[in-house]
Amino acid sequence: MTQTTTRPARNGVDVPTLFATLDAVRATPELAEFQFRAHNTWQSGTHSRTEIGGFYGAGQEDASRGEPFNYDADHPAVLVGGGNAPTPVEFLLHAIAACLTAGLVNIAAARGVTLHRVESTVEGDIDLLGILGLSDQVRNGYRQIRVAFTVDGDASADQLAALVEQSRRRSAVYDVLTSGTDIVIDVTAPAARTA
Amino acid sequence: MTQTTTRPARNGVDVPTLFATLDAVRATPELAEFQFRAHNTWQSGTHSRTEIGGFYGAGQEDASRGEPFNYDADHPAVLVGGGNAPTPVEFLLHAIAACLTAGLVNIAAARGVTLHRVESTVEGDIDLLGILGLSDQVRNGYRQIRVAFTVDGDASADQLAALVEQSRRRSAVYDVLTSGTDIVIDVTAPAARTA
Repeated sequence: MTQTTTRPARNGVDVPTLFATLDAVRATPELAEFQFRAHNTWQSGTHSRTEIGGFYGAGQEDASRGEPFNYDADHPAVLVGGGNAPTPVEFLLHAIAACLTAGLVNIAAARGVTLHRVESTVEGDIDLLGILGLSDQVRNGYRQIRVAFTVDGDASADQLAALVEQSRRRSAVYDVLTSGTDIVIDVTAPAARTA
Repeated sequence: MTQTTTRPARNGVDVPTLFATLDAVRATPELAEFQFRAHNTWQSGTHSRTEIGGFYGAGQEDASRGEPFNYDADHPAVLVGGGNAPTPVEFLLHAIAACLTAGLVNIAAARGVTLHRVESTVEGDIDLLGILGLSDQVRNGYRQIRVAFTVDGDASADQLAALVEQSRRRSAVYDVLTSGTDIVIDVTAPAARTA
């Protein structure tokens, strides 16, 4: 039997392919240019729905995930919404937890650390006096987000904590949520009518 | 017939209740303190699942949305993931579109503007040389996010654009994604083992 895999899959991560991908991008850096997209359609009131489908990456359009994914968002009843789905700000909490977890699992696999369990609880504090326009002293967004990880794996507590720290250092969502990014907004009113 | 509603519901927004809510928070600012939460559980590889349920707001725990919502995230095959769900960074695009749309619809209702259609397309450009650790010159997160709105409503193009601009000025997600926030990460390794 021919066995050429020297770094086996671990934590559900195909480690040989992960390293091969890094090598391929190192050789052809343009492969690293990605564009992600979403299309949102208003439903009623504060309720809207987003479709997420293909993206551009690794030099081509990518439709490998098949049918588009759909996600709703809404405000809760206490904020005069329909409560049909989480609020937009709650999806930021999903994004940070999922990004740090994916990175942590990849890094653990690359370092040969087997993980048994990874869970995280995220809390975000926000004072709505900002978005309600009732105070100029209060920002619109979260004042603070806290992520509490529980990690069970075949490594010391220090090593497991170091995996999370390395994931944080390489997290796209952490970077955007802590440092911000440029956002450009454009509006077209194709059938604008005089009020 | 007794008709006491002077500002009727519009765009699916209960405008009288919206104004009553603003009045209540103005009278008791502590009602504006909210805490949103999420709990993420690793599945396998880069695939994880987030549960979003109750939150704290308006002075109490709020479970009015019923059963928790669940959302997966994953990396696509080209990034050695399973492609079971969108990437974490794509949920940021959902969040910004949904937040700007909800605000726009509320503001339109408050200003007496009837909307017929609101759609938005979001694009986010990201160079993965950052998160792959292949360049110190490239940031981890999005270089830029663009949101293109199409708004059809009973107002002039300038008035409709002004609704989007006011929504941007009061958007929690826009604030976090452009200005960043404080994120604290904590790690517990309850059953840490020596490697």
